[in-house]
Amino acid sequence: MSKYNVTQKLIKEHLLKGEMTPGKEIGIKIDQALLQDATGTLVQLELEAMGLDKAKTEVAVQYVDHNLLQTDFKNADDHAFLLSASQKFGIWYSRPGNGVSHPVHMERFGKPGKTMVGSDSHTPAAGSLGMLAIGTGGLDVAAAIAGQPYFVKMPQVMGVKLTGKMPDWVSAKDVILEMLRRYDVKGGVGKVIEYYGPGLKELSAMDRHVIANMGAELGATTTVFPSDEMTRKFLKSQGREEDWTELIADEGCTYDLEDEIVLDELIPLIAKPTSPGNVVPVREVEGMDIGQVVIGSSANPGVRDFWVAGAIVDGKATREEVSFDINPTSRQVIQNLIANKGFEKLIAAGARFHQSGCMGCIGMGQAPASDTISLRTMPRNFPSRSGTEDDQVYLCSPETAAASALTGKITDPRDLEKLYDMKYPKYEYPEKELINTMMLVAPPEDGSNIELKKGPNIKSLPYIEPLREACDVPVLLKMGDNISTDEILRAGAEVLPFRSNLPEISKFSYSVIDDSFYDRAQEAKDHYGGHVVVAKDNYAQGSSREHAALAPKYLGQIAVIANSYARIAWQNLVNFGILPLEFIDIADYDKIEQGDQVNLLNLREDVKNRNNIKVVIDKANGEKVEIETKHSMSDRQIQVLLKGGIINEFKEQLKNKEVNAVKENTVTDNARKQVK
Amino acid sequence: MSKYNVTQKLIKEHLLKGEMTPGKEIGIKIDQALLQDATGTLVQLELEAMGLDKAKTEVAVQYVDHNLLQTDFKNADDHAFLLSASQKFGIWYSRPGNGVSHPVHMERFGKPGKTMVGSDSHTPAAGSLGMLAIGTGGLDVAAAIAGQPYFVKMPQVMGVKLTGKMPDWVSAKDVILEMLRRYDVKGGVGKVIEYYGPGLKELSAMDRHVIANMGAELGATTTVFPSDEMTRKFLKSQGREEDWTELIADEGCTYDLEDEIVLDELIPLIAKPTSPGNVVPVREVEGMDIGQVVIGSSANPGVRDFWVAGAIVDGKATREEVSFDINPTSRQVIQNLIANKGFEKLIAAGARFHQSGCMGCIGMGQAPASDTISLRTMPRNFPSRSGTEDDQVYLCSPETAAASALTGKITDPRDLEKLYDMKYPKYEYPEKELINTMMLVAPPEDGSNIELKKGPNIKSLPYIEPLREACDVPVLLKMGDNISTDEILRAGAEVLPFRSNLPEISKFSYSVIDDSFYDRAQEAKDHYGGHVVVAKDNYAQGSSREHAALAPKYLGQIAVIANSYARIAWQNLVNFGILPLEFIDIADYDKIEQGDQVNLLNLREDVKNRNNIKVVIDKANGEKVEIETKHSMSDRQIQVLLKGGIINEFKEQLKNKEVNAVKENTVTDNARKQVK
Repeated sequence: MSKYNVTQKLIKEHLLKGEMTPGKEIGIKIDQALLQDATGTLVQLELEAMGLDKAKTEVAVQYVDHNLLQTDFKNADDHAFLLSASQKFGIWYSRPGNGVSHPVHMERFGKPGKTMVGSDSHTPAAGSLGMLAIGTGGLDVAAAIAGQPYFVKMPQVMGVKLTGKMPDWVSAKDVILEMLRRYDVKGGVGKVIEYYGPGLKELSAMDRHVIANMGAELGATTTVFPSDEMTRKFLKSQGREEDWTELIADEGCTYDLEDEIVLDELIPLIAKPTSPGNVVPVREVEGMDIGQVVIGSSANPGVRDFWVAGAIVDGKATREEVSFDINPTSRQVIQNLIANKGFEKLIAAGARFHQSGCMGCIGMGQAPASDTISLRTMPRNFPSRSGTEDDQVYLCSPETAAASALTGKITDPRDLEKLYDMKYPKYEYPEKELINTMMLVAPPEDGSNIELKKGPNIKSLPYIEPLREACDVPVLLKMGDNISTDEILRAGAEVLPFRSNLPEISKFSYSVIDDSFYDRAQEAKDHYGGHVVVAKDNYAQGSSREHAALAPKYLGQIAVIANSYARIAWQNLVNFGILPLEFIDIADYDKIEQGDQVNLLNLREDVKNRNNIKVVIDKANGEKVEIETKHSMSDRQIQVLLKGGIINEFKEQLKNKEVNAVKENTVTDNARKQVK
Repeated sequence: MSKYNVTQKLIKEHLLKGEMTPGKEIGIKIDQALLQDATGTLVQLELEAMGLDKAKTEVAVQYVDHNLLQTDFKNADDHAFLLSASQKFGIWYSRPGNGVSHPVHMERFGKPGKTMVGSDSHTPAAGSLGMLAIGTGGLDVAAAIAGQPYFVKMPQVMGVKLTGKMPDWVSAKDVILEMLRRYDVKGGVGKVIEYYGPGLKELSAMDRHVIANMGAELGATTTVFPSDEMTRKFLKSQGREEDWTELIADEGCTYDLEDEIVLDELIPLIAKPTSPGNVVPVREVEGMDIGQVVIGSSANPGVRDFWVAGAIVDGKATREEVSFDINPTSRQVIQNLIANKGFEKLIAAGARFHQSGCMGCIGMGQAPASDTISLRTMPRNFPSRSGTEDDQVYLCSPETAAASALTGKITDPRDLEKLYDMKYPKYEYPEKELINTMMLVAPPEDGSNIELKKGPNIKSLPYIEPLREACDVPVLLKMGDNISTDEILRAGAEVLPFRSNLPEISKFSYSVIDDSFYDRAQEAKDHYGGHVVVAKDNYAQGSSREHAALAPKYLGQIAVIANSYARIAWQNLVNFGILPLEFIDIADYDKIEQGDQVNLLNLREDVKNRNNIKVVIDKANGEKVEIETKHSMSDRQIQVLLKGGIINEFKEQLKNKEVNAVKENTVTDNARKQVK
């Protein structure tokens, strides 16, 4: 294999461990890290717990875009904490209201040829610049910031050839909707989607952002575009032409899978409720009454996207039954929209202009009214995500959204030619955009003396003890198949505000299943030093929520014994120091009951040497039963677990200055000077 | 008395009942009505219950400015309901995000010489245009819309003479802060504050708005300015010069009270937590670290107020520890700010720009972080009103706020001359502002066929039965002195979302005092057809919340027996058909206990004829005790109560076409054609 596609080139350049065989685990060097505030407080607390002195990545940036609605002190306190932590740990801080992480990162920090992890599922958006950008859990991001490789299974690469010209009234959103129409929301799992071909020149870098961002909805590991002339043009418009390097696939390279989109054949598409994969032509649903239009979010973040909506509604009033919400993606986008008159056109036509951030895309405001259709340029329309139960959210392009705001009905934007005698407005990309970096706060040379600002709802992570030699603890819960992380630690408005407050959030552990759990766990911790729980197949499926391991650990969970585990949750258990045991004989599941006492002896030795692990069960009636269990951890994971989790491991490594994955001289200070 | 001040002229022109003797009740004709959404849903439901065909005021406008944060369906549902109700009842509808009621009303609808009631305490802002504008309860506004006179005690008029010239770095906010420094938050009770004198020419109409708006904080009935050349200039800039009429005090007129402000002597002032009356010079608190600055709200709504802040921060970055929140007051203000570059200066300096509305002024977002000072140009800083408990909110001018955003500390804006070599930026008022009326939805000629759009949380008001002839009902609650409306029906995030859902909100009746009340009231309603409650002195003090009468009525409350009542609550009881009885011998309070059964006989006759009302008490032990009570209702109120409240009365009047306070030919249709 001497001819590489772009994805392979990116991986090859950063490969630290493993081989590039699809399905095999590889460890790659990470150049950049992206944090947002909803997940970022925990990441920063993890950095604190690790004892990190300074970020080892070339650039790490803390964005504040999710929790901008301040109805009490908590979100504002988080912002103050994130500023102080960013200063302490050598991380850039993008002030609240400066914008959504993905477009701001692309404008100010993204660089062709670099790798990035981000604690946000739309991190792949940076693939638009020829980066390998992967969304992942907070602890993985913390680890990357601490200089560790990122471990992931080598993906298959699906090459999607773009040919032809983009028709009027069709834009990038229709390209990714076409992909979702073909592959649905699981079609990209285990794959990197790489676009190539002559049609690429039809897509500006920000158009590619739309496609890469919403590629997350295909379930793809990430999306990759080459770095070409369009990329250079973009970086030049951002005053960063010198950050451009060409990165294109070798002629004659191959892809594990192939497909083609003929752009000329595209028509306006729309994803019906309640899945981004539920795509049909706009024509199929046109004429339905709507109650809301939302333009913006990281899935249509560019100046063009707002400008085209402004050009469509220019001089007209949007319908009075329609809430016409504009969700600008960044301060810089607003400044450019003022300059090109897009802003005033939108305002005059009835726009409710909101501060820059994620807003309704993650249910933080602008929930639609009951029984009304909401048309959004956002990436997701999962049920109730908007904040309204039984919502009817449709996903579409800014062209379709703006057309519909004028008519009050779902409208194919091509009809504007007849309805309003309108020509398709084409955006002229300026040579240079207005640039605003004032709201990006650089970290100081030395942040070691900075004190973390912790409001009353922000608590440091507690120390986690290494795995014990032995224990004699109760089985606090016996569960069945497919227990989800939502059952282990539910989300929602009552619980999530405590995301930075482990003592508080742990009170909700398993409360969906058994609301006496918390009290019983506290008792077991006092009397026996901890507890175990038992489950059947596919334990901890669903959301990757780290709290579903961290909170039970805080309550003294030593081990889970189950038939099988969901992948991410299984990694999380190890990362937070909980031993994930598996029944060897699945019939043993029936031999163990809630309330039994279990004895685990010689635990560290058996785990280390991959011996079967004996579990002696003291039944309530005095009977003793002995069963055997095992674990499937890698050598690396065994080391992590023995130390009580990944935080302890890094703490030790950092202490011993053993961090060698990334050399000290690539720290943020160098990057600081480069970023404009 | 042949020489009149402006207040007296306004009242004389509109007097329908009573005499202009301070302290005596007068009834005045109401020309205009202002509704906002937080109180407006109930007003509209009251109009529905009255069976109103069409608004009888010259102009009534429904604004949507309070509940703009949509975290679930409720607020969006309210907006759809308010649009449908406004269309049905002949009321203008100002779309969500079009702006805060007071400045928008002033720009588009306010007219010198007119009277107005509004269901918002800052309604007096319209006094800036030479109007008599009074904030009042929702049912009073509904009554005015239905063509009824507004009843109020004839106020004293305090004449405040303005002389001299306004110094640099001092603006209208400092004038009203000076008044609050002198008179504190109760100094205006029972008074209209009327400004006059040569200093008036220093104040634009929108400056006067600042002073009239925040005059509410003095406790004043309202504030009145003359309509002079500055007023004409303003109306001309709004394209409404023909709406101007001169309205100035007669030479030689007198005032009940007098004071003078020499403008030259003013310095930048600030109200410390936690009262708008807690005013000191900025110098006294300068240098304290701040965490937030908020510019906007109806207390500093003008284009100038934002422009001057923009001019101060122009080209500089606000401090990173400071959340610099801009709360534009209207769509039109934003458009003018774009035109004069103020908008982009604010954005570039770090502004978090929010949609037009009341926002943080009523705790709807942008709550400050714990333990930080928030500097706001808003009118109120009562404890926790911001949404953060133990908040530290300071009130000041836009000049002081913007200066402090630059330094991160409370800063006297006069120091900017030294700190930044800055000259005081003086706003040039344009001959004509950009005007946007597209978001004001006119009512149709005939709205009778329009159906009200009621989401699942909006319920029509139930029919209230006329006062009964007799009853035999239990005493469900015996309370002490000073029971507040917060105890009768508490506010807060759990309860307020049900403000349009009487069956739901009534579940919280008296829950602060006794959480079994709701169940017991339901039982009493089923078994006995209702209940009474007993209290001592000053029953239902505090907030004017109508629900504190409406909800108990819904649960079957026939009468309250108390020593005395708070004034507004007493009116509310009558308005919603609850009989407010008073002990004649206050020793009788001890003769009646919770759980007793009371018999009221010959009730209608005795109420009508002002006879003492006999209460026969059946004690649990079989004993019978008889006491006497009375009421203090006026003849008008007696009529209202007998019919089961004001809604029933109007319903009957409207049915019989007895509405004669305002002639039919002044309906909205005429006004429609006039409003630009």
